[in-house]
Amino acid sequence: MINVNELTKIPMDCTLSEFVGTTVLDTIGLVIPGVEPSLLAQMHLDKPYKSLGILSSRTGAAGQINAVDEAVKSTNTEVISIQLPRDTKGWGGHGNFIIIGGENVSDVRRAVEISLEFTAKYAGELYISEAGHLEFTYSASADQALSFAFGAPLGKPFGFFCGSPAAIGLVMADLAVKSSPVEIIRYMTPDIGTSHSNEVIVAVTGEASAVKNAVLTARDIGLQLLVSMGSCPETPTQPYL
Amino acid sequence: MINVNELTKIPMDCTLSEFVGTTVLDTIGLVIPGVEPSLLAQMHLDKPYKSLGILSSRTGAAGQINAVDEAVKSTNTEVISIQLPRDTKGWGGHGNFIIIGGENVSDVRRAVEISLEFTAKYAGELYISEAGHLEFTYSASADQALSFAFGAPLGKPFGFFCGSPAAIGLVMADLAVKSSPVEIIRYMTPDIGTSHSNEVIVAVTGEASAVKNAVLTARDIGLQLLVSMGSCPETPTQPYL
Amino acid sequence: MINVNELTKIPMDCTLSEFVGTTVLDTIGLVIPGVEPSLLAQMHLDKPYKSLGILSSRTGAAGQINAVDEAVKSTNTEVISIQLPRDTKGWGGHGNFIIIGGENVSDVRRAVEISLEFTAKYAGELYISEAGHLEFTYSASADQALSFAFGAPLGKPFGFFCGSPAAIGLVMADLAVKSSPVEIIRYMTPDIGTSHSNEVIVAVTGEASAVKNAVLTARDIGLQLLVSMGSCPETPTQPYL
Repeated sequence: MINVNELTKIPMDCTLSEFVGTTVLDTIGLVIPGVEPSLLAQMHLDKPYKSLGILSSRTGAAGQINAVDEAVKSTNTEVISIQLPRDTKGWGGHGNFIIIGGENVSDVRRAVEISLEFTAKYAGELYISEAGHLEFTYSASADQALSFAFGAPLGKPFGFFCGSPAAIGLVMADLAVKSSPVEIIRYMTPDIGTSHSNEVIVAVTGEASAVKNAVLTARDIGLQLLVSMGSCPETPTQPYL
Repeated sequence: MINVNELTKIPMDCTLSEFVGTTVLDTIGLVIPGVEPSLLAQMHLDKPYKSLGILSSRTGAAGQINAVDEAVKSTNTEVISIQLPRDTKGWGGHGNFIIIGGENVSDVRRAVEISLEFTAKYAGELYISEAGHLEFTYSASADQALSFAFGAPLGKPFGFFCGSPAAIGLVMADLAVKSSPVEIIRYMTPDIGTSHSNEVIVAVTGEASAVKNAVLTARDIGLQLLVSMGSCPETPTQPYL
Repeated sequence: MINVNELTKIPMDCTLSEFVGTTVLDTIGLVIPGVEPSLLAQMHLDKPYKSLGILSSRTGAAGQINAVDEAVKSTNTEVISIQLPRDTKGWGGHGNFIIIGGENVSDVRRAVEISLEFTAKYAGELYISEAGHLEFTYSASADQALSFAFGAPLGKPFGFFCGSPAAIGLVMADLAVKSSPVEIIRYMTPDIGTSHSNEVIVAVTGEASAVKNAVLTARDIGLQLLVSMGSCPETPTQPYL
């Protein structure tokens, strides 16, 4: 047992079998081999899986959802819950709490590992300044996680752009959809579809080149507007788009 | 196009035609000359304006809404949406996301400019300490923005007081309404009418001197209680009441 | 009257009769001897008490609710409202806004004093790191506040465990309920029962030893997982369980 009077002695290399790993944006990946039945009943999950994988971050949503999208695409698992807490460690956006289900623990563990790997990559399109933040994501072929979270058509290109303070998100979105023949599949604001975050979020689908161009246009506009507020954004890893 | 590998080279003096300006409290003002039709459809705005002006801040609500009130009063524009994200950059209150509509872009641009000017002034009645915050606003003659947000009777005096942690707001409000013959038009708490902010907010109307006296009483009480928590508040500009 | 141009001169030892005291976690305790009737009408309280006591914090929920539980147990007062703002000063959890009612102001003042004392004690089971936080509370005999907030059976043992980021809370809960024959009485997540906090919260009841063991197991697991995220937690006072 941990001695709570010696908190500094708790080892950082966790040995619990439930632990999978951590990555940027205060993200942790865990597994539960077989959920305790009375807890499972309270969770009201639609599908009764034996094993659960969990990805959860203080900061970021679209990048992690896209990461889980890659994970469920390549493993025998399925996303069964995506919740977006109002978090971001003092910024105006969301964190995430995503549950993956599978028939056995090795499948969900692998899915969580892949999710953590792609979270590090996709975090490269999260830009945070002292004033606000921008988040972008792109998938050439949306799978089940992006469909679950944003209504993305399965197998089709998917683009996502988000700006905070919210006004930046709206102007980005306007110029992005003017720049390319894309279809808007989700529009979210502080009162619509978010957990009262200070963001406007737009998700689009369409032809691959049009969707990618819309995301790049949104990013170009968003960065100019965010910097106009007086500080330079940083990204936790490397831009990849 | 912005080079995302050289984020520090993005100029702070934004040249986009959509950019109007920035001011205190991480506030940005933008315009959209003619919103892209498919985006406009998603926005579900009640009134179909050609041009939109947008004011959006990380911190503050009543001051900016009062600022927009002044702006729509003196321009050929109208407030069509006010949303209050749960923000304040780590404090317990709201930011704002306000949309102004007009028939042409020069009208809404002027409205946004006026909103930015008054935001700087009205921010003087926002007091932020390490423990919490207080916000006050007063209008001798409420117009459309204050009516939209708080049900203020048009053309009548309007007073607003808000305290965080919420207990401070409640005691302020009690002593304020005891001090003056005012009528309460709005009562908001973490679960009622806010985006789960840690505030009690009360808005009042009545005779000008009574409303102003109630606001000043609330401020007097609120400052004493906030300071009792162990740190001195600051205001981003200058108190004006 | 306070001079708002000399904010630094406001005394920290508050002399308002409404002031009771402050304690850790940016907690303030206040009383209102007789609420102004028009304000009382807006509050829509179920029970018409003459005097109100108020406890309100920027950070923490279960500890303060347990503290108020002790206070109403030993005074002639009753909890009449518990609201949980989305706060914690930049972390992923809740603050609190709790109203106690009584027939006279000395009763509610005493209840607030007791609440403040126990808040300092119970804050010892709140652990905050750079990445997230954990909160635990235990009562051998739940009273009216814990029943009001979490549906705790009156007079029965009550245990509470909460972890943020949310994934930690879920795995803690799973292992805790596997470790002891307890009954889950509340399950809360970013979208269920919280104010969109980044937490999974589970409350349990059962035999005293089983409930206490479940809380200690949750704490043991939670601390290991939280530390795996790369920083050591601290507690504002002293662990007491």
